[in-house]
Amino acid sequence: MLPPKQSFPVLDHGFVRVVDSMGDEAAIIEAARVSYQNDTIVTRKDVELLDFLLRHWHTTPFEMCEIKLHVKLPIFIARQWIRHRTASVNEMSARYSKLDCDFYIPRVDTVGQQSHANKQARAAGVDPTNIKAVEAWLSKLNTECHSAYYHYERALENGVPRELARAGLPVNFYTQWYWKIDLHNLLGFLRLRMDAHAQWEIVQYANVIAHIVQQWLPNVWEAFLAHRINSITFSAKEIPLVSTVLIARLAGLDERACVNKEAVNMSAGEVREFFAKIERIK
Amino acid sequence: MLPPKQSFPVLDHGFVRVVDSMGDEAAIIEAARVSYQNDTIVTRKDVELLDFLLRHWHTTPFEMCEIKLHVKLPIFIARQWIRHRTASVNEMSARYSKLDCDFYIPRVDTVGQQSHANKQARAAGVDPTNIKAVEAWLSKLNTECHSAYYHYERALENGVPRELARAGLPVNFYTQWYWKIDLHNLLGFLRLRMDAHAQWEIVQYANVIAHIVQQWLPNVWEAFLAHRINSITFSAKEIPLVSTVLIARLAGLDERACVNKEAVNMSAGEVREFFAKIERIK
Amino acid sequence: MLPPKQSFPVLDHGFVRVVDSMGDEAAIIEAARVSYQNDTIVTRKDVELLDFLLRHWHTTPFEMCEIKLHVKLPIFIARQWIRHRTASVNEMSARYSKLDCDFYIPRVDTVGQQSHANKQARAAGVDPTNIKAVEAWLSKLNTECHSAYYHYERALENGVPRELARAGLPVNFYTQWYWKIDLHNLLGFLRLRMDAHAQWEIVQYANVIAHIVQQWLPNVWEAFLAHRINSITFSAKEIPLVSTVLIARLAGLDERACVNKEAVNMSAGEVREFFAKIERIK
Amino acid sequence: MLPPKQSFPVLDHGFVRVVDSMGDEAAIIEAARVSYQNDTIVTRKDVELLDFLLRHWHTTPFEMCEIKLHVKLPIFIARQWIRHRTASVNEMSARYSKLDCDFYIPRVDTVGQQSHANKQARAAGVDPTNIKAVEAWLSKLNTECHSAYYHYERALENGVPRELARAGLPVNFYTQWYWKIDLHNLLGFLRLRMDAHAQWEIVQYANVIAHIVQQWLPNVWEAFLAHRINSITFSAKEIPLVSTVLIARLAGLDERACVNKEAVNMSAGEVREFFAKIERIK
Repeated sequence: MLPPKQSFPVLDHGFVRVVDSMGDEAAIIEAARVSYQNDTIVTRKDVELLDFLLRHWHTTPFEMCEIKLHVKLPIFIARQWIRHRTASVNEMSARYSKLDCDFYIPRVDTVGQQSHANKQARAAGVDPTNIKAVEAWLSKLNTECHSAYYHYERALENGVPRELARAGLPVNFYTQWYWKIDLHNLLGFLRLRMDAHAQWEIVQYANVIAHIVQQWLPNVWEAFLAHRINSITFSAKEIPLVSTVLIARLAGLDERACVNKEAVNMSAGEVREFFAKIERIK
Repeated sequence: MLPPKQSFPVLDHGFVRVVDSMGDEAAIIEAARVSYQNDTIVTRKDVELLDFLLRHWHTTPFEMCEIKLHVKLPIFIARQWIRHRTASVNEMSARYSKLDCDFYIPRVDTVGQQSHANKQARAAGVDPTNIKAVEAWLSKLNTECHSAYYHYERALENGVPRELARAGLPVNFYTQWYWKIDLHNLLGFLRLRMDAHAQWEIVQYANVIAHIVQQWLPNVWEAFLAHRINSITFSAKEIPLVSTVLIARLAGLDERACVNKEAVNMSAGEVREFFAKIERIK
Repeated sequence: MLPPKQSFPVLDHGFVRVVDSMGDEAAIIEAARVSYQNDTIVTRKDVELLDFLLRHWHTTPFEMCEIKLHVKLPIFIARQWIRHRTASVNEMSARYSKLDCDFYIPRVDTVGQQSHANKQARAAGVDPTNIKAVEAWLSKLNTECHSAYYHYERALENGVPRELARAGLPVNFYTQWYWKIDLHNLLGFLRLRMDAHAQWEIVQYANVIAHIVQQWLPNVWEAFLAHRINSITFSAKEIPLVSTVLIARLAGLDERACVNKEAVNMSAGEVREFFAKIERIK
Repeated sequence: MLPPKQSFPVLDHGFVRVVDSMGDEAAIIEAARVSYQNDTIVTRKDVELLDFLLRHWHTTPFEMCEIKLHVKLPIFIARQWIRHRTASVNEMSARYSKLDCDFYIPRVDTVGQQSHANKQARAAGVDPTNIKAVEAWLSKLNTECHSAYYHYERALENGVPRELARAGLPVNFYTQWYWKIDLHNLLGFLRLRMDAHAQWEIVQYANVIAHIVQQWLPNVWEAFLAHRINSITFSAKEIPLVSTVLIARLAGLDERACVNKEAVNMSAGEVREFFAKIERIK
């Protein structure tokens, strides 16, 4: 089924809009088999092939589908997004046009707090003792954005070139772009950007795109969830620990006591990650 | 000759620093011939081959050289730079570390003014009647950057996650990255970014990199200047006009009167570009 | 207009078949402007924008169109074709399926002869004294291909793995693939493969694809012909010679005598190329 | 440590030769931290960072190392190899030079037989009843290659262009190329080409390159083995089965009887793959 050609709102002023797409699940099958397409019905055998191709890391059949999105997003999110180099992008140019006065102001309940466990992450929930300060900061942020925009407009009036007048605009200003990418690389994008370690704001965009892909290519999406998003990988260091820990669990022993991180050559972070994974093996 | 491993200052706080490089002109020759390298002396015949490869748009031999640069640059320049997708980049992360208080404030004599001829360009020279206003804007820009940074620090103190606290920092803040690219794609970057239509600030960086390449690969650089930067391309529409105009010039006639833009199916812009080119044919 | 979804025969057993496409000229315009599409009518202003984008080497708007082709081609042509790395390819696998007995035997009138001027090229016309020998070679080629195929089949019957049994099949065997590429990179492919220096066999494929693009995107095609295929580029070394030679021509003097290749630092090849270009300036 | 600049033989006439390299483990660390390099000593903390970056699928730090290899390999292996599009390649040209008479003839003990379990694979060991036939095929292959080469030489003598004369040469002829790739993409290549499902011949090349990388970047190599080559990934469908099967094993029950492939929505292939993985959990 073609992806829905509609606009989905994201954050306070952003959106994701489907402009066009090419290919469907039958097109992936057809290319994988290098055959003449008979019809667009996807059989049970086709579904098994899609699952096979995805779980064995085949790439080119999934490159045979393509999607083009029109996205409105804050500059600091655009800077993370553009790191995915295998897409085609046309961005509106602040050198060519005057920018609109749209900027992203977080809602207080989404601000969260700096994580102590993970140096680059955001932990959920503002510390209650800080709520007033955070609200004050958001209010100030709003005021300063308007002030920056005011001076941007004055600079333009005084003949400052557009390409320079924007120098003082903050990175929460919204930009827009056309973004075209094939399915293989889109799944790579989603794998990184739907992750709990991605910045909350880009996760909101990724979730909308995930919804679009799910409607467009439901069997590919299911395989992607099964083999990438919801799979568990045990490293060679962890493999010998799996049954040890599971047996300890059955015996009612302390699972963590079984793992001596020196002996297994794992860092504290690896041990933490191992137990997060083993938790999921019921 | 290896590129000089030194740091070159750019703008008020930026720099380009050569971290490492791979290959030289002998390496290009060796790969083009798929041969065992005998020595690193480049003969006259080798120089002719380098020129041949470049003027006939061979690409892979030039991909055999690689350079890695450490660059400090304003965010809005980084956003233009990153559009070149064939490089490898590691950028410092505002999610992970607190940013330094370095921002780019243009010098008044480099501000220029919005071009009327070209909607995206900057024309040289501030209009004298605007100098006071431009100076006032620069002063205000400086104040507002410090203010934005002050509130950024307050937000961090109040537990706002680093990834969000930076939301109000302007696009003239400096970032840093490691940037690694092969010579073929580097020449493509320079071709676009040394151009008169590129933003003045990125041209400053491109000129420094040009200087580095010139010292590293002098014969390639000479061929690049001859066949790309300083060459002239006449389109199929323009070819029939070249001798017409040159004959008119010899005869002392009005060159422009010879060209009827309707008849030759050229836009006003094309006609302007044509005469800019023909000016260079003395 | 969408490209015609039909199959075009090439060489003795090959073809190019349009499987699918995405985007048209209105889609290029829409992305270049990062705007909401109003309609699919392309105005005179749009055509000028397409020409502007192409002649100033804009790339991303042309990446917004995509085409997928099913191609049957000899292996040695496939090996040249695959050097274009920016496409997606699914090729039939000789590891997975038994190959058909289709091989390319040149027609005697297309064989030509080894060029002496250009070490890698083919000159037109078989030397009459060699025709018998060339016919004998073609006949032998045909016999040997059948023999190689016979032994391939025997090997399969004796349990030799498919991936190894094909080891003796010649490079004129036909393979097939699905090939998907965006317009920008397709034009790059055509620029190289429609060229007189490309191998005659791949030129036949390029010409068919050129015909498809011309019907699909007629204004882009016209701009591409004007600014790439039929344009002339004079290097910085050649520019000073243009008016010298044209004046000599007007004066009835020997054009070639004007150019001292030592003085202008040009190789014999460059001088030859210069006069080939100047011939086109009437 | 720099990779050894030496030539390693592969198959009967092939080789892998290290031409040059750029970067080491300290360079990966330096780029990941966007810092000034202090020294080239890699500390325990650095080793943990390398492991962290690799297991969390960071890519750009590993792109900061680059290697250039000179490889001689049969054409049909070159055709698999070239599918990795993120490398730079200069191949010797059969249009430009006469090819040498080097072709790959498998040793009888490496021929194996067509796998029945896997349609594209080779199973070990020639069926004893076929050994005579396989030996006859190898002998015939050798004869026919010489014959094809003989006719190639006759064609050249009769003025057939080089680009066409090679049409009858088989795909087991050796070609050579310079191949330059960054470490991230090289690890991707090795992951696919060291795999048991890759063709035996390309595995021989991959193993040699693996040996080179191991000496060049020993800590990266160890992390790569732990997290990619020797890791196990359980899909979301398999996760619920892991403890079920392990408990059955402890209880001495039939492990396979626990898994109803209908109930768990797995194909026969997935069930087979699951038990191959669970075998490794002792």
